[in-house]
Amino acid sequence: MKAVIYNGKSVEYREDFPKPEWRAGYSLIRILRAAVCSTDKEVRKGYRPHFSGVMGHEFIGVVEQSCRKELIGKTVVGELNEGCGHCLYCKTGREKHCPERKVIGMEGRNGCFAEYMLLADRLVHPVPDGLPIETAIYTEPLAAALEIPAQVHINPEKNVAVIGDGRLAYMIAQVLSLNGCDLTIIGKHMEKLTQFQTCGKIQLLESIQKYPPVDETYEIVVDATGSPEGIELANRLVRRRGTVVLKSTYAQKAALDMSQFVVNEITIVGSRCGPFEPALNLLSRGLVKLPEIEWHSLDAYEQAFSSRAFKAGFRIS
Amino acid sequence: MKAVIYNGKSVEYREDFPKPEWRAGYSLIRILRAAVCSTDKEVRKGYRPHFSGVMGHEFIGVVEQSCRKELIGKTVVGELNEGCGHCLYCKTGREKHCPERKVIGMEGRNGCFAEYMLLADRLVHPVPDGLPIETAIYTEPLAAALEIPAQVHINPEKNVAVIGDGRLAYMIAQVLSLNGCDLTIIGKHMEKLTQFQTCGKIQLLESIQKYPPVDETYEIVVDATGSPEGIELANRLVRRRGTVVLKSTYAQKAALDMSQFVVNEITIVGSRCGPFEPALNLLSRGLVKLPEIEWHSLDAYEQAFSSRAFKAGFRIS
Repeated sequence: MKAVIYNGKSVEYREDFPKPEWRAGYSLIRILRAAVCSTDKEVRKGYRPHFSGVMGHEFIGVVEQSCRKELIGKTVVGELNEGCGHCLYCKTGREKHCPERKVIGMEGRNGCFAEYMLLADRLVHPVPDGLPIETAIYTEPLAAALEIPAQVHINPEKNVAVIGDGRLAYMIAQVLSLNGCDLTIIGKHMEKLTQFQTCGKIQLLESIQKYPPVDETYEIVVDATGSPEGIELANRLVRRRGTVVLKSTYAQKAALDMSQFVVNEITIVGSRCGPFEPALNLLSRGLVKLPEIEWHSLDAYEQAFSSRAFKAGFRIS
Repeated sequence: MKAVIYNGKSVEYREDFPKPEWRAGYSLIRILRAAVCSTDKEVRKGYRPHFSGVMGHEFIGVVEQSCRKELIGKTVVGELNEGCGHCLYCKTGREKHCPERKVIGMEGRNGCFAEYMLLADRLVHPVPDGLPIETAIYTEPLAAALEIPAQVHINPEKNVAVIGDGRLAYMIAQVLSLNGCDLTIIGKHMEKLTQFQTCGKIQLLESIQKYPPVDETYEIVVDATGSPEGIELANRLVRRRGTVVLKSTYAQKAALDMSQFVVNEITIVGSRCGPFEPALNLLSRGLVKLPEIEWHSLDAYEQAFSSRAFKAGFRIS
């Protein structure tokens, strides 16, 4: 079958990649669309040195074979993290934190940049009737945004800032704006920020140094910048006894004055992947506005990876 | 009057310090007992360079004059932080976070190592009948421990570790053990740790390097070590999607891999002073066991400051 793979050193397009064989406990999914996430670009740069195989984890497809008979023929999306099923984390509802987890397109499991993929049955979610597939493919990134209200009580009386103007920030701003809170999006690119105007106020960040060392403007600050500057600015902007939500991962360590967190009683919450069902609900109800994806064929992976569109992906079947 | 003061450079005992004059909005308190806290030792080292005046913030006394007539003649304890009363923090129940706050014995207000002290009326709490004054004086440090369950839901089904074997750790262990959770206290001094045996399991920490880089044993870890080593060990011990509570303040910055907090969805909560009424309730009900304080006279401040007892203080009147 056709597939875009990471061979341990670089990305390759292949037409002879073996089609996965169905086995019990897994659903065999024919992929319709798959989208590129910045994590895929990190995989390409060697972020997962032990991984080789089909890339990609954001997809929509049709189940061809499964022990969950009700799924067969259904259009579905699916979660990334397949836990071992018997450790403390798997047994306490934290499968995505299983230390032995496999992750499609990243760790021990082939991903979705291919004509077919196997996915553990329990990770498969049927797409509600009437939801266009080009919208449903946003389920996984939207779920990551929904992890924030899943972890932190976002009181609509509080004011909230999102730092960052990329794709993840956009999902987060869409989700958080739905509870009626006073939302500000702070970013470095005016052309990107204008997209956020329906969610809340926008604010252009020229330079972090222009901010006073202590500003204390927001009760809740979400760092979705992807850089260590994010937490630095978040710390300046958050009010005493407020909450900083971290969505950014990066290689560097951050040097932090932890005593200030104690004295000001700041809460910091790390936040990663999120729940699929609420994401499907929001998409179904048309409550989230999402830009169109720029589609490519699998062999044009270079264009998809380097696209400057809001989001790019593959139209596979 | 007699007083132990910090003169901006060193500590002095004086017998001619002016007795405070009562004014409306404040209670004039005759001090019975006052206890030394490690923060007082920090003040002595220059932690509050702008402060000069009477030291001390843990006390029990009798109200001699007040606009709150019901307080007159009552034995009372009192809170440290006097906010401005009109800022955002004061108006949203966060007076202790007021950026303009005065703090007895530390910032803009004389403290309790003296025969008399003035304290804002609203910060005064009557001691319940029958509670011995030598127990009631523990209200403030116990309140600091109670700030943890005030901020974080301590589910009794979860296991909890307290790192540290000093006074604050002891208060915290006493409080947290009351909800029935599986509690472990980890410290460096076996002779101190044995005091904790009625609260939970004890564990001697020989060296942080002997711990595996990732241990993931506890759902909630409280750092009460007072050193940057505390958060380092807490990060090793906490489970994924668990919570680290920080009680330590220290001068150094800590270099932290924030991406690990994101990937493992750790929550970090800074925690400082706490609520007085629950502390008085616990003390009144005899639910907290506290060692006897070693008492000195005010002129023997050097002995009180350098005492190796669990806690030392002043018997004033």
